[in-house]
This record gives sequence, C-alpha cells and structure tokens, in this order.
Amino acid sequence: MKLIEDKIREVGRVLPGDILKVDAFLNHQVDANLMSEIGKEFARLFKDEGITRIVTVESSGIAPAVMAGLYMNVPVVFARKHKSLTLTDNVYTSDVYSYTKQTSNKISIDKRFIKPNDKLLVIDDFLANGQAVQGLMNIAEQANVEIKGVGIVIEKSYQKGHDMIKKSGIHLESLARIASLSDGKVSFVEE
Amino acid sequence: MKLIEDKIREVGRVLPGDILKVDAFLNHQVDANLMSEIGKEFARLFKDEGITRIVTVESSGIAPAVMAGLYMNVPVVFARKHKSLTLTDNVYTSDVYSYTKQTSNKISIDKRFIKPNDKLLVIDDFLANGQAVQGLMNIAEQANVEIKGVGIVIEKSYQKGHDMIKKSGIHLESLARIASLSDGKVSFVEE
Repeated sequence: MKLIEDKIREVGRVLPGDILKVDAFLNHQVDANLMSEIGKEFARLFKDEGITRIVTVESSGIAPAVMAGLYMNVPVVFARKHKSLTLTDNVYTSDVYSYTKQTSNKISIDKRFIKPNDKLLVIDDFLANGQAVQGLMNIAEQANVEIKGVGIVIEKSYQKGHDMIKKSGIHLESLARIASLSDGKVSFVEE
Repeated sequence: MKLIEDKIREVGRVLPGDILKVDAFLNHQVDANLMSEIGKEFARLFKDEGITRIVTVESSGIAPAVMAGLYMNVPVVFARKHKSLTLTDNVYTSDVYSYTKQTSNKISIDKRFIKPNDKLLVIDDFLANGQAVQGLMNIAEQANVEIKGVGIVIEKSYQKGHDMIKKSGIHLESLARIASLSDGKVSFVEE
C-alpha cells in the first residue's frame, strides 16, 4: 500500500537492533486518516472471507483493527496483555513472547466474545516473528473457531512470521513489506 | 448520548464494588460503529475549541480517540503506561493511580508529539476519580500547552473527577452520565 510505504519513508526511523520506529503515525502518535484508509484496504482485501469478527492485541493493534471493523461492520475484540494471570474458566489465554522487549506476556480473551462458527480476521500493527499471531491462533484453536485471515500494517518479511502464517494456509495480507533495514535504510519487498 | 445509554442498559453489567462492566462494546470487545458515532459526537461538541491534537491513555481510550481524530482531522497521541520508567529527556511523564486496580502507573508521551501552541482535547473511555485526566493535565503543564476540552464516553458523576475538571474551567463533555449503580441498577443523571 503506497500510502504506508510513503509514510514510512517520510517519518519512519531505523534504529540500531533492527528496529523500525513508526511511533509518529502508528503506535504512539496515530494518524487517524491513514488508519481509516488502512481499515478500508483490509475490508477490500478480506471481503470474500466471510469474516464475522476481528481480533487483535492491545495496544497498537487497536486503531487499525477498529477501523477495519468499521468498514467490515463486524465487532472487534482486543486481547488483553497480562504479566501474570489467575486462570479462570471465563477466558481463553495464551503466552506471547516479545523478542523486542525480551519479556513474556499472557494474552486473554473473554470466552463471551468468541462465538461458535466465528470466522476471525487477525489484525496487527507489526509482523516480525509472529508471536502475537501465534498466540491468537492458539486462542482460536481453544475456541474451536477458524482464522480466515491475517492483516498486518507493516511486515518484516525477512523474519519468520510471514512464512509461519503462509505455511498454515491462512490468507495473509501485509500492507507494507520490509525486505531489509540494513545500513539504517528501509528497503521494501519488490512485488 | 442516547445511543450509549441504550447500549449500557442493554449489555452493561453492574458488579459488586461499584463496577460497571462495559467490556461488550468499549474496553475489550469494541463496537466500531458505535465508536464512529462517538467520534462524530465529540467532533461536534468540541468544534469551537480550535483543537489541534487529541491525547488519551492506552488501551481503552484509543478506539474513541482515534474516531474523534478522524472526524476532527487532527493527530491522536496515546500515552504509554509503564510500571516503571527510566527517566529520559525525551518524554513527558506523570503518575496515575488506578483506584480500580489499586496500582500506580507512570504514563509518558514523547516530547516530539506535543507541539508548542497545541490545543489539546483529552479523550477517555471512563471518568471516575479523574486520575488519568489529571496525569494528562500534568503532562500538558510540563509541555506548556493548554487543554481545551475533555471528552468522556462514560462518567460516574458521583465521583470526584467531574467536579475536579469543572473547577479547573476546562470544557467537559461526558456522553453518558451515571448517577448511581446502587442495587445492581444503572441510573443516569437526568438533564
């Protein structure tokens, strides 16, 4: 999606440690108009999947997920992150390891907010190693519902999340695909 | 706002400890269409305040704030919550105590995302004791900018946040105002 690539070129910052900072429009300051365009694009890309519900993980996934929910006219559920969690019968839960922060979180979704026969669309701001998506796949399995699509705003295509999702056969759409952050420079996958 | 009062009557749950659970549409599952209506309503209510930027606190403030940002055509910044924070010169920070969770968090906003002469609108999902708003007021003071409005989705009008904001002279708009949660029943302020 050219809008996002342009925005990354304009305000993205490459930091040591293979980090792309996009806090100017995505995960600290949010460009609401761009989020709206992102929501429309996800609605277009997944229109044939029969999606009944969008799931994401707080916090940075919420803005693009809610915009997608608006244009797809389906409810959005954001999984809660917890350092620890008292297990109850009322939630689905999974472990998510963050390579960036080198910490493990539990994520949870209240069982009331996934229904039998739901067809889920996972939305997230970033895809790198795919830990968050895997956590949501795990929750979908517990709930015995299908994930019909994964929509990502920015993907680091050289990390393992992309292949992991492709191998699982799920329809993956990443709006900006990064081939490399070498030498402080963003290169996109040529398609 | 009748839409929200109706939704609270329909799916809100009053729990022991003066808790109103609205996780069915606001802070776990999100009704994107309702968030869009909320965004439009905030845009209408604050249209004369010359707002240049919206600020909120992750996570539950993000959905209504981003929708307001869309219809007001201004950037949205969500303050990050931290258990602890290494102080740097790059962020404004403040302490926020949560009566519900009985824990204290630090919130922070990168200094790049508040500009001189900004006129801020604070958006949040809930107003009770006003701790989150006070944290953002504190950050606005550090940044030497003015808060021109506070927009709240659901206010517990019998707690001290309402009066605190009114006394400060800031334009406050709460879309649903709760007078009482006694006997497991939601009563709204009659206006």
